[in-house]
Amino acid sequence: MPRLTRDRISEIARKILTAAGTSEANAKVVADHLADANMTGHDSHGFIRIPQYVADIKAGRRDPRAVPVVASESRAVVRVDGHRSFGQVVAEFGTRQAIVRAQAHGVGLATMGSLGHVGRIGSYGEMAAREGFASIMFTGLLGDAMIVAPYGGSVPRMSTNPIAIAFPYKPDCPILLDFASSIGAEGKLRVYRARGHKLPDEWVLDSSGKPSRDPNDFYSGGAVLPLGGLHGGHKGYALAFVIAVLGGLVGEYGLPEPAPGEFTSGSTIIAIDVGALGSVDALKVKVGGLVEYVKDTPLMPGHSEILFPGEKEAKTRQQRLKEGVDIEPATWEQITALAAEYDLVLP
Amino acid sequence: MPRLTRDRISEIARKILTAAGTSEANAKVVADHLADANMTGHDSHGFIRIPQYVADIKAGRRDPRAVPVVASESRAVVRVDGHRSFGQVVAEFGTRQAIVRAQAHGVGLATMGSLGHVGRIGSYGEMAAREGFASIMFTGLLGDAMIVAPYGGSVPRMSTNPIAIAFPYKPDCPILLDFASSIGAEGKLRVYRARGHKLPDEWVLDSSGKPSRDPNDFYSGGAVLPLGGLHGGHKGYALAFVIAVLGGLVGEYGLPEPAPGEFTSGSTIIAIDVGALGSVDALKVKVGGLVEYVKDTPLMPGHSEILFPGEKEAKTRQQRLKEGVDIEPATWEQITALAAEYDLVLP
Repeated sequence: MPRLTRDRISEIARKILTAAGTSEANAKVVADHLADANMTGHDSHGFIRIPQYVADIKAGRRDPRAVPVVASESRAVVRVDGHRSFGQVVAEFGTRQAIVRAQAHGVGLATMGSLGHVGRIGSYGEMAAREGFASIMFTGLLGDAMIVAPYGGSVPRMSTNPIAIAFPYKPDCPILLDFASSIGAEGKLRVYRARGHKLPDEWVLDSSGKPSRDPNDFYSGGAVLPLGGLHGGHKGYALAFVIAVLGGLVGEYGLPEPAPGEFTSGSTIIAIDVGALGSVDALKVKVGGLVEYVKDTPLMPGHSEILFPGEKEAKTRQQRLKEGVDIEPATWEQITALAAEYDLVLP
Repeated sequence: MPRLTRDRISEIARKILTAAGTSEANAKVVADHLADANMTGHDSHGFIRIPQYVADIKAGRRDPRAVPVVASESRAVVRVDGHRSFGQVVAEFGTRQAIVRAQAHGVGLATMGSLGHVGRIGSYGEMAAREGFASIMFTGLLGDAMIVAPYGGSVPRMSTNPIAIAFPYKPDCPILLDFASSIGAEGKLRVYRARGHKLPDEWVLDSSGKPSRDPNDFYSGGAVLPLGGLHGGHKGYALAFVIAVLGGLVGEYGLPEPAPGEFTSGSTIIAIDVGALGSVDALKVKVGGLVEYVKDTPLMPGHSEILFPGEKEAKTRQQRLKEGVDIEPATWEQITALAAEYDLVLP
């Protein structure tokens, strides 16, 4: 099981994506995002995605040289057409657009359509926070990617539609909410299945719509429940629904619908100039006060610490930038096979 | 148990609030919001609040004649100082400000501080939607109103900090998410307790931090869990935290902190001109397509219908505008006592 540094992950990803036909500029953006996802502990959005992205290119589902463009603009609002480029390339471009509009207007908004998997959506909130902007991002998947049952339903009709909300706090560590509106990410179910464990609660439905703690039931034609689960799933479902509207429908508006077997990650990001809300330094001090107040909470048995949103990612990044990250053998085999296919010597 | 119409609720509220010293203009806004909360089925934010609001006035916690003002403005961003007025008065003013900025810039944002209980926060999303604006609103309570334990904590350090997201759909029925970031609203726990029922799951902690299904444990020095509960509460906690920042801290920035025993509902609303995102009519058609797709989902046993977010409120309103709403005897007694105190003849 090889242990890889951030630079090595990024370099391997860049080489393979370029060999598969990706432009140098796009490959660099995607490779850096994948490496950063691994560094923050979100391995499901990192190195493991390379084979899938290559497969997308080969199948013509992704245009690896495409550059996103501003399709239209109206004051503080920009609509971005991703031209079927990588999600990371389009979302970084869209985030930049929202920041520029927020610089001019105090608040700015960019919608994005026709784009691939955006990766870890919290990374765009981090990007905005580094420049002093708070942000809210919605990604609503449309097309063949439905795995979540609406509240009261027995089969999937929604995706895991994630939301990210960020607010500047410390350098390289904003306050950062970044979660799927389903009860658990698909990658998490995969881990329970691989380890032969039951789920912590009835998180899925089996193919007949019966609640279950067996992750295999999801993979045999079942569905994931929305955040809140059996008794409070109306909240997660409502969140998935509005993200489908504000991210998916709005982002894809005016663009061709995804072909069968494809999906697109319609997204919207709102950037807010924190300087328009008050003194940035004074607001960071207030946030620090809230962080301390909450971290000081007496613990529940079984817990060792109260984290503020984004703290786990920041701590993991600090550790992994030093120590690297272990890549599981199955993924490493796929990568070496791709390297052989493209006649590459991996770093 | 009297059954009251919308107009009668509004008129009784207006008379009592005015008698208690509220200006005519403020009383009308608050009374209409209370009546509308009852009509949409959110009784915990309706008629039942009148005695509390009168007590707030008597204790000097609320200035019933205060008018909110724009404390500062910067392009599409407005900061509103509520001057300790009613939450409904300040939030309606703030929503109007955000709409006006969105008309000019495509997107607009208003922060609000120094205000009382805002009532049903979905009502501001409905207000924006009626005029063609999507919106996102956060209300983060600061002060003595903590009832929610942070994820991993055994005592309360957060409030039920609600979020509302709305998008125009049908007249008087937008797509509307409106929920507390806790696993259940406090009013819901109150109902379980009154009926002597166990909670559907371990929704609360007892005073020693142990998870419990007994609602009494919450009222005996316990805490409510965040949305997601024991196994997924990190999501609800993250939501409560960012709402405390983006609503509470930002809204209250630069204003005096609430005195002991008081709280303030620092809020932020973002309004988005849907016309800047595309054709409003075409987008509504797309939303309608999503509504149909989701409502068509095969049902789980025990469920009779899939609702879209906001549909329950719209249906309840339609019914209650015709039939009125039953007011529980305890509340009615308090109201008649207040009427006697102020020598009022109730309509």
